[in-house]
Amino acid sequence: MTDRDIPDIVVGRLPRYLQALEHLQLSGAQTTSSQELGEIVGVSAAQIRKDLSQYGEFGKQGKGYSVSYLVHQLQQILKVDRVWPMALVGAGNLGHAIANYPGFGQHGFRITLIFDNDPVHIGTRIGPLTVQDSARLVPVLREKKIKIAMLTVPVRAAQSVADQLVEAGVRAILNYASITLSVPDHVHVQYIDPIIYLQRMTYYLD
Amino acid sequence: MTDRDIPDIVVGRLPRYLQALEHLQLSGAQTTSSQELGEIVGVSAAQIRKDLSQYGEFGKQGKGYSVSYLVHQLQQILKVDRVWPMALVGAGNLGHAIANYPGFGQHGFRITLIFDNDPVHIGTRIGPLTVQDSARLVPVLREKKIKIAMLTVPVRAAQSVADQLVEAGVRAILNYASITLSVPDHVHVQYIDPIIYLQRMTYYLD
Repeated sequence: MTDRDIPDIVVGRLPRYLQALEHLQLSGAQTTSSQELGEIVGVSAAQIRKDLSQYGEFGKQGKGYSVSYLVHQLQQILKVDRVWPMALVGAGNLGHAIANYPGFGQHGFRITLIFDNDPVHIGTRIGPLTVQDSARLVPVLREKKIKIAMLTVPVRAAQSVADQLVEAGVRAILNYASITLSVPDHVHVQYIDPIIYLQRMTYYLD
Repeated sequence: MTDRDIPDIVVGRLPRYLQALEHLQLSGAQTTSSQELGEIVGVSAAQIRKDLSQYGEFGKQGKGYSVSYLVHQLQQILKVDRVWPMALVGAGNLGHAIANYPGFGQHGFRITLIFDNDPVHIGTRIGPLTVQDSARLVPVLREKKIKIAMLTVPVRAAQSVADQLVEAGVRAILNYASITLSVPDHVHVQYIDPIIYLQRMTYYLD
């Protein structure tokens, strides 16, 4: 079975398994079980066993999983066993907050370029980086071979920036703008939308 | 079957169905099908029919779903057919970005209180709101009967603020701090973690 045959919904659960395993690792756990993982992630033990079995045999019957081994395997499967340089487009409040978020570096993601089209922001520094003019987006991203970009521009600018990212060869866009982007099939888009998370919780309120 | 019997994973898909339906509604669509919805959300048509059937009979065999009716039903099920007042704790860059995000109001969520413990922020205004001293968090939230809070404080402060939110009667926390919170069973926590989304995409890169 090639990667392409595995449903996206299964792939979508793998980062959550990895996150749970990394928490277990930080807490000093050596081994875990599909039951324990399932309780952390909120998925059935059977589902976890089925999802992982798509990629190989990671545990021993009755012995559970080695936490560090499974972390390593999932990092390889998710291709986060390397450092990914990223571009950030949009140097407003949200862009600043994201640029200063230490979690990216801790997980192999490194923001190496920041762009904005506002003269107020262009040339200013955010940490070690200088905000560059969005007009240079396409040639700079091409030259640096950037494959991942984060979009923190206003809704009205999001689609045109996304078009430029596609033109520049970007293959994955993390979109914070609350708008559905139209991109070619070979480009992946994920949406960070707090509404979705809030609605998951109001369901349980009275 | 009572709501409590429906798995959390099913509940978690409902906001995504609602979001897709709202997009369809904005684009002028009157009816939709489980196939179309499935393509937008990235879930099988059978899964959508099965999930929705937990709550009733919303479509007619061969006729599909009325978009506006299903939007209305899902809003009721998710309890977003009303306005939820929310507190925001943490008035830094991310807090500012979130306070200025128009999407909350458009979906029935309204930030009515903002807190911070830093004298630099206390007393400053963000839009129509004045940042209040976190020291007053518990009595103010109790008095206003706030049930939902968003947490945009540094990691080191997140757990102690969460403890205060629980004490104040908050039942749902949207946590932007990259730390797993320990809360009682009756309190719901959702985590907004960009790493998870990035890892879903690197899987497909080469």
